[in-house]
Amino acid sequence: MKQLTAEDLAIRSLGERNIDSPLDPYFKECGYVHDFYSDDARVLVDHNLESIRTTFQNGGEPLCFEASGPRRKIFFDPAETICAVVTCGGLCPGLNDVIRAIVMQAYHRYGVPRTLGIPYGFEGLIPEYGHKLINLTPRFVSNIHQFGGTDIGTSRGPQDPVQMVDRLIELKVNVLFVIGGDGTQRGGHAIDEEARRRGYQLAVVGVPKTIDNDMIYMDKSFGYDTACAAAVEAITAAHTEARSARNGIGMVKLMGRHSGFIACSAAIASGEANCVLIPEVPFVLEGDNGFLEAMRQRVVRRGHAVIIVAEGAGQDLMASSAGEDASGNKKLGDIGVFLKGRLEAYFRQRKTELALKYIDPSYLIRSVPASTQDRIYCMRLGQAAVHAAMAGKTGVVVARWHSSYVHLPVGMVTSSRRTVDSGGDLWLSVLETTGQPPRFR
Amino acid sequence: MKQLTAEDLAIRSLGERNIDSPLDPYFKECGYVHDFYSDDARVLVDHNLESIRTTFQNGGEPLCFEASGPRRKIFFDPAETICAVVTCGGLCPGLNDVIRAIVMQAYHRYGVPRTLGIPYGFEGLIPEYGHKLINLTPRFVSNIHQFGGTDIGTSRGPQDPVQMVDRLIELKVNVLFVIGGDGTQRGGHAIDEEARRRGYQLAVVGVPKTIDNDMIYMDKSFGYDTACAAAVEAITAAHTEARSARNGIGMVKLMGRHSGFIACSAAIASGEANCVLIPEVPFVLEGDNGFLEAMRQRVVRRGHAVIIVAEGAGQDLMASSAGEDASGNKKLGDIGVFLKGRLEAYFRQRKTELALKYIDPSYLIRSVPASTQDRIYCMRLGQAAVHAAMAGKTGVVVARWHSSYVHLPVGMVTSSRRTVDSGGDLWLSVLETTGQPPRFR
Amino acid sequence: MKQLTAEDLAIRSLGERNIDSPLDPYFKECGYVHDFYSDDARVLVDHNLESIRTTFQNGGEPLCFEASGPRRKIFFDPAETICAVVTCGGLCPGLNDVIRAIVMQAYHRYGVPRTLGIPYGFEGLIPEYGHKLINLTPRFVSNIHQFGGTDIGTSRGPQDPVQMVDRLIELKVNVLFVIGGDGTQRGGHAIDEEARRRGYQLAVVGVPKTIDNDMIYMDKSFGYDTACAAAVEAITAAHTEARSARNGIGMVKLMGRHSGFIACSAAIASGEANCVLIPEVPFVLEGDNGFLEAMRQRVVRRGHAVIIVAEGAGQDLMASSAGEDASGNKKLGDIGVFLKGRLEAYFRQRKTELALKYIDPSYLIRSVPASTQDRIYCMRLGQAAVHAAMAGKTGVVVARWHSSYVHLPVGMVTSSRRTVDSGGDLWLSVLETTGQPPRFR
Amino acid sequence: MKQLTAEDLAIRSLGERNIDSPLDPYFKECGYVHDFYSDDARVLVDHNLESIRTTFQNGGEPLCFEASGPRRKIFFDPAETICAVVTCGGLCPGLNDVIRAIVMQAYHRYGVPRTLGIPYGFEGLIPEYGHKLINLTPRFVSNIHQFGGTDIGTSRGPQDPVQMVDRLIELKVNVLFVIGGDGTQRGGHAIDEEARRRGYQLAVVGVPKTIDNDMIYMDKSFGYDTACAAAVEAITAAHTEARSARNGIGMVKLMGRHSGFIACSAAIASGEANCVLIPEVPFVLEGDNGFLEAMRQRVVRRGHAVIIVAEGAGQDLMASSAGEDASGNKKLGDIGVFLKGRLEAYFRQRKTELALKYIDPSYLIRSVPASTQDRIYCMRLGQAAVHAAMAGKTGVVVARWHSSYVHLPVGMVTSSRRTVDSGGDLWLSVLETTGQPPRFR
Repeated sequence: MKQLTAEDLAIRSLGERNIDSPLDPYFKECGYVHDFYSDDARVLVDHNLESIRTTFQNGGEPLCFEASGPRRKIFFDPAETICAVVTCGGLCPGLNDVIRAIVMQAYHRYGVPRTLGIPYGFEGLIPEYGHKLINLTPRFVSNIHQFGGTDIGTSRGPQDPVQMVDRLIELKVNVLFVIGGDGTQRGGHAIDEEARRRGYQLAVVGVPKTIDNDMIYMDKSFGYDTACAAAVEAITAAHTEARSARNGIGMVKLMGRHSGFIACSAAIASGEANCVLIPEVPFVLEGDNGFLEAMRQRVVRRGHAVIIVAEGAGQDLMASSAGEDASGNKKLGDIGVFLKGRLEAYFRQRKTELALKYIDPSYLIRSVPASTQDRIYCMRLGQAAVHAAMAGKTGVVVARWHSSYVHLPVGMVTSSRRTVDSGGDLWLSVLETTGQPPRFR
Repeated sequence: MKQLTAEDLAIRSLGERNIDSPLDPYFKECGYVHDFYSDDARVLVDHNLESIRTTFQNGGEPLCFEASGPRRKIFFDPAETICAVVTCGGLCPGLNDVIRAIVMQAYHRYGVPRTLGIPYGFEGLIPEYGHKLINLTPRFVSNIHQFGGTDIGTSRGPQDPVQMVDRLIELKVNVLFVIGGDGTQRGGHAIDEEARRRGYQLAVVGVPKTIDNDMIYMDKSFGYDTACAAAVEAITAAHTEARSARNGIGMVKLMGRHSGFIACSAAIASGEANCVLIPEVPFVLEGDNGFLEAMRQRVVRRGHAVIIVAEGAGQDLMASSAGEDASGNKKLGDIGVFLKGRLEAYFRQRKTELALKYIDPSYLIRSVPASTQDRIYCMRLGQAAVHAAMAGKTGVVVARWHSSYVHLPVGMVTSSRRTVDSGGDLWLSVLETTGQPPRFR
Repeated sequence: MKQLTAEDLAIRSLGERNIDSPLDPYFKECGYVHDFYSDDARVLVDHNLESIRTTFQNGGEPLCFEASGPRRKIFFDPAETICAVVTCGGLCPGLNDVIRAIVMQAYHRYGVPRTLGIPYGFEGLIPEYGHKLINLTPRFVSNIHQFGGTDIGTSRGPQDPVQMVDRLIELKVNVLFVIGGDGTQRGGHAIDEEARRRGYQLAVVGVPKTIDNDMIYMDKSFGYDTACAAAVEAITAAHTEARSARNGIGMVKLMGRHSGFIACSAAIASGEANCVLIPEVPFVLEGDNGFLEAMRQRVVRRGHAVIIVAEGAGQDLMASSAGEDASGNKKLGDIGVFLKGRLEAYFRQRKTELALKYIDPSYLIRSVPASTQDRIYCMRLGQAAVHAAMAGKTGVVVARWHSSYVHLPVGMVTSSRRTVDSGGDLWLSVLETTGQPPRFR
Repeated sequence: MKQLTAEDLAIRSLGERNIDSPLDPYFKECGYVHDFYSDDARVLVDHNLESIRTTFQNGGEPLCFEASGPRRKIFFDPAETICAVVTCGGLCPGLNDVIRAIVMQAYHRYGVPRTLGIPYGFEGLIPEYGHKLINLTPRFVSNIHQFGGTDIGTSRGPQDPVQMVDRLIELKVNVLFVIGGDGTQRGGHAIDEEARRRGYQLAVVGVPKTIDNDMIYMDKSFGYDTACAAAVEAITAAHTEARSARNGIGMVKLMGRHSGFIACSAAIASGEANCVLIPEVPFVLEGDNGFLEAMRQRVVRRGHAVIIVAEGAGQDLMASSAGEDASGNKKLGDIGVFLKGRLEAYFRQRKTELALKYIDPSYLIRSVPASTQDRIYCMRLGQAAVHAAMAGKTGVVVARWHSSYVHLPVGMVTSSRRTVDSGGDLWLSVLETTGQPPRFR
């Protein structure tokens, strides 16, 4: 990652207007200290003491994020504001929770009369698709958080920002909430730029989505906790199959294209996994210290084994595949099917009985309703997003950082990817929990 | 099915001994009418009034099953009895419940000091495998019903009855409980025959297992309710994926090699399925009234569709596969993958957008702990099995028939298979629930 | 119960009209044998072979229920029919499922354009309450089965049949579906009688509701399976509390005013209960063989105990309470609180440490969404109710009897109550499972 | 809170011994930077930038906690170490997870041959109770995390440190893990002091437990997430009851003697609560802006309401109760029952119909197994506790602070209590979510 500067963290605002927030009475009555939510409120980016000391010693100022929260003075007059929400990319638990939180917060707390649901992702802003806009009333969203998926639909891939801004202007939309991954946030950014270029006052506020938990500068991504919980159920099934059969192996492939967070967390939670493979830690198949022989020995010694493999692990071991999906993600080789074949061949060759059951639960994880903690997190993110938008922030995403809700410039979260530190405490806990060797080599 | 006779229903007994059941005080104190549990207690096989009338008019006697339950006089002296339990074949919810019920009933109600767990199916009775016997104490089994799978292990395929009886005699086993499907029950029957041939007094009592609910003469098979519940979760995932995408189809493959019971019941329960395909109802892919065009029209009209396909459906549509698994079951072609390919090709050809998500939840269904109703059912079956065995019944399986627990000669349940009646009320309810056409043709 | 006659079982019909059922094509194409669903189709009331034999020998005819199902000719012209649904009494899992099934079946299968939801029970038919009618479209009901409770509201107690029929006529309602317990079904019957008196052709079809499973002539009542499952969770909590504490007792009070079905089934399912008390089996507190000393001995011997008590158990032990609730049910003394006090006093007196945790989960059981099996059952009941109504049946309830769906005259199900047979196999299984003495006396 | 000093944060160590950690190979092979886990690794206590700046400007040094993690050199020789684990106080989800993590980590990662389970809390160290010690093998603990409660038992209240240390010395215990709340940690501290006084080298390491999440200097307490999830189920039941009845109110009492965290989080997660009452925010019952009239208006306006009340809320409104429980906690008045009475009286007086259902789910929350996130958290805490103990740390508890695992001197966490800041962002989110007035006054 390049060195950040204070400019990188600056949040763009549409400007100042002297409109009193309808939440003002709350502030007064509850005794909220107004400065807490002023634009000057700051949350340290890096809380490593030595970094901070060095910065001060060099006469610098430690970098901080802008704190999220309601502002006393807002930019948009609620009664004349039209909001819109769009969800893009693959399913992730909590999408409906974020939609609901935005609609409820805009309607009930700010008095925004109308929030539109853009149907099927950015497609919904391109007239030729012919999708029908959705009127997101409190009644429409009242129960949607009980369901997985997104009730306004989603699609993959970018659309033309010019056409999208044309449509937003036509609809008189003042605020666009963009819920999606890094590609989607870049799409939102393009809309923001195009609107700015035309001088159309549009606030674009993102809520970052990645089930893999691989976006930087946030404590976690929404849906990740839920995904881990659903993953544990698949691991339990694998464990049950494995221990019920002689020389049973249960293998589960979990999400994680570039980052093995779900695999790591689900393995620790289950307490049943004997081996975790993630993209960040290369491994070798063959040889006395290789994966295959290690699994064989485990099975011979203990009668069964449970293996968890993140979808992005071991890509170097397979013949390269080609192509990308509609979101522009490189298509991965199927490491689960590959390892299944290799394990079966190896055990056969070594004349060791093997009963391998392979589980690929993908959609069963992506589509479930949000867990309790994710429901809280999505509610908080949605509420924060509305505060940001009503205050006229744009080109911004909301996130939680070190337990505080903050505004991040959209460019920051799309600039690089968070990965599991193979020298850090999460991976150490995985090793401690599974007892697997530090490296298969 | 061939015409049954009273002889077909006769239960073999090891003989009479004048041993008082340790449950006798219960009978007396509770006022149980002893005749209810006498060997004369009967449960009608067929309760169709016209059949009964005709039988009486012809001077015949309607066929009845022997009622299950405790007998006042038992065959085995509990203090000197050794029981054994074996589980065979694929996983099914409730295996551990049945094991637990048998152990608890034998130990606590009859005072049988020892029940052995035969490890990994019939393999566990063949010395060369080297498996270690399990001592099934009440403590060992106390919590196992909270877990899926089988804590004594399972395997597929038959073993030599001579060797197995050698081993049972060596272990001084008097009672063998056989939990498994039709192949397994045939294996138990072979053991029974072999023991009889040698004059070794062994009671072999079966608890029939089939997750597909395809065994005849029983209200349902254990684990089936649980499987339906787990299947509904997969359908919910498919529905969520389908409705979140433009022209989304969610397709779920469910168990059901020859009988579509799980597919039918799960479809009715979910209330979200738009099409169910089962082995009992052939269907046509092509043409204006074929499956492919019907699905396309549904998607065009309603934006999404949910399809449920039993694994044994549409086998005639695929090039025949070859081979059998270790249990001797013919390997099926993968109808789910096949239909996925055909749907995608057809939609492409008709230039209709399609986002198809295919879910194959197999192990995630087989491995879950039993539902509440299955826990009750398994407890009752296990208790009934112990009553039958202690009374010296052999060559028998226990089952529930028209809400009563009965003894069935093992040959009856392996003689043919139960299927969904395509002219009956279950299939009609599927059609009413899904709105699919009666036939794709 | 008084001796039934064939007249008691006769189903009243509004008459014959030569309207073809819109389901006719289904019949033809699926090859349904039409006689199966003719009014002559019959389901034996009593399938005891000796009773049947005796009846035949006496020249009689065994009693049968009318089979439920679609009729080829129906009474109401769907396009001109208005249906209404009302739910009354306390919550029970599955209410929303039944509503949804009725609306979907009426709309999609018969083409009935309009089904009204009567708000808040029979109150909704009395104008002075000012409740607003609900338009039960397929969209309104599409997701309601995912939620507990009733989306059209409920209330307790009877209302004036004259006013209710006035209102139904005013609304041009032709078919009224009444979902509720015995009091509610009597209310529906009064409406039926009043409409008949006036010559207004109204079909009143009931779906019997009782979470206690205490209605006669049905395999089970809807919601009962779900209630048992929720009850098991409370027992698990009690067991956890009990075994975590020295001399811990966990006691759970479950529904069951007159019948202990939930207590029995939940105890068997949990496998953790050591004592079950139900209204059908009186018990004594004091003395060497009394309940108190038995519990003390269990705790001393095993360190903990789990007790399940049905709310109607042991009412004779408490000073009589007075009064009735709005539904006319006699108010019960709180046996749970009573036993808690007595146990604590007894242990104190006997100088035995005691850590008793008392759990009363009532609303947490009544309010949950239906389990998979109940979702199937409710769907089937709702579909059957619509078939009955469209064929012009009235004064009828639908139920499942010996695995077949049947029509019962409403008077039959309100005539008496089903109870646990203390000399039967369910109670025996409870005794076997818990190991409690047959009687505390 | 008094001003902290660096001395307050100093962790006591039993000393230095030059024993290589058995984890050393892991470090080397994985490339862990050893300094990360050195005793010099530090985690900032307060990451407010202005505080840090001021401290530096005054020539001070910002306070830091010692980082948790494996040390290269350890104090105890694993092969000769005996560990012991004790759980005290009320149940909390995750107790078994922490026990399991400690046993697995000590046995598998360090090679400690023996870990004892102290039965029923501190009682288990007092011989006169006659409790039998538990041998905590990996097999004993392998499945316990699937169950709520504590498999080694718990009790309330302090015991004599002299007797307890006598017993620990007799048992040759070198390491004592104390899992419990502030009283329990004080008890552990007394043991630590007594052992030190005698010169017996005992490491006492605590894992802080409080379901209320009210302990300071930790991101959250284990079991809290699970409790929130279970609480949401009770709220859902209350909501279902409330909306199914005319003028229905569902009221749920949740844990929270001094701190309303569970009430706040569960309310946000459910999205269905209309009013939350917590100990930190006083409220007034009577008057136009009082709680009673506000609830009445909500019910009249919207037909139903859902109220959540923390058990410690509104204690000033009730006549003072007396006494303490065995843990020395002041007995609270039952605010739920009190408010139920007041609401019913008020509605009656104002002639407003009311159907109030009151739910007190206490044990159903405390006794459930840990959620996925809590399972991870407990695993990490248990692993950290073993690292600390083996390194010879004592008088210490492990916790997560700003996403890092740290060592806290036991005195710190018992010095005061964490509460919901009524001027902070959590309470603001509650107000935004419920729409309740900032104050009832």
